[in-house]
Amino acid sequence: MKDLGISALDKLIDQLAQLPGIGRKTAQRLALFILKSDTQFASDLANAIINLKQNTHLCKRCFNIAEDDLCAICSDPTRDQHKICVVEDIVDVMAIEETHTYSGLYHVLGGVISPLAGVSPDQLHIQELIRRVQEEDIDEVLLAINPSTEGETTIIYISEQLKPFNVKLTRLASGIPIGSHLEYLDMATIGRAIQSRQELKKG
Amino acid sequence: MKDLGISALDKLIDQLAQLPGIGRKTAQRLALFILKSDTQFASDLANAIINLKQNTHLCKRCFNIAEDDLCAICSDPTRDQHKICVVEDIVDVMAIEETHTYSGLYHVLGGVISPLAGVSPDQLHIQELIRRVQEEDIDEVLLAINPSTEGETTIIYISEQLKPFNVKLTRLASGIPIGSHLEYLDMATIGRAIQSRQELKKG
Repeated sequence: MKDLGISALDKLIDQLAQLPGIGRKTAQRLALFILKSDTQFASDLANAIINLKQNTHLCKRCFNIAEDDLCAICSDPTRDQHKICVVEDIVDVMAIEETHTYSGLYHVLGGVISPLAGVSPDQLHIQELIRRVQEEDIDEVLLAINPSTEGETTIIYISEQLKPFNVKLTRLASGIPIGSHLEYLDMATIGRAIQSRQELKKG
Repeated sequence: MKDLGISALDKLIDQLAQLPGIGRKTAQRLALFILKSDTQFASDLANAIINLKQNTHLCKRCFNIAEDDLCAICSDPTRDQHKICVVEDIVDVMAIEETHTYSGLYHVLGGVISPLAGVSPDQLHIQELIRRVQEEDIDEVLLAINPSTEGETTIIYISEQLKPFNVKLTRLASGIPIGSHLEYLDMATIGRAIQSRQELKKG
């Protein structure tokens, strides 16, 4: 669609198109929706954006999103204080929390080691993780990092760094996703599932 | 993904999820992107939203988006002042402008007649269109309304209303989209293309 030469509209379209996964057509559609919505909606949306930036920051300990110095998980005394789940991003914390299968703490790296993208270990929160393992009473570090090439590199690097410490290192199991069919899965996933096959308990 | 109990984050996710085509997961991803972006980006985005609402409104004449009383198209003296292209929405103006095949004026109805959705003719800018045809020196009204059932109803309704006036009524051609294959098209489209077949000029 052609821009209509309305600078206020073009400016919002430009801004929206910078959001991830929002192409120019979607940005135009969103901007026109905002244009046609009532003023209350637009001002609520603008305020929510400003408010998020002003009232949140990263947790001092685990780099999850926080309103206070520590995030809601770090400051929750009912969580297991001896386990750290290491993830790439805050979205991964949200995804894991939804499963209700993990009750320990987190550590958000802020990415994975990627020489191609110019991300070196010192740009991630790895030193802070090592310090936590040294200083806090941690007995397990679960490396819940996405199994990409860069993820594997990151898992190996962190494992090496944590070797000197008396801490159990674990990683997420790889295998067949629940509900999927073998015929549609890639060879690497099937291969990993065979290698990691588990013995059935005999009734 | 689970909400992390951060009210500023939840509020922005709620707002973003109200945008068309933005589901909850996308809203979370966008909110986290805004969270991690620099403050400048977030404030630019918020200001662009406010600015759009404050500095634009609908054109007094054609209901396209405008910064002044009249939109950029209505106030452009080089446009053909004797043709009106009737469309449902401002996005349609943008789509048609991009083709560079139309140089007349527009009239944005603001929707189509839809008894099921409770949209009656008096909720659309049809009276204003009739007034323009009466008062302005219009010789053609192109009904560029999407060919849905409601669109057809609207085309028929407007045609009836404009019958008393000495104005040529046209509609967009229906047929085979450029670049498509017959085998993948619906019967209605192929049928229309056969009915509307055009004679080839002999060299």
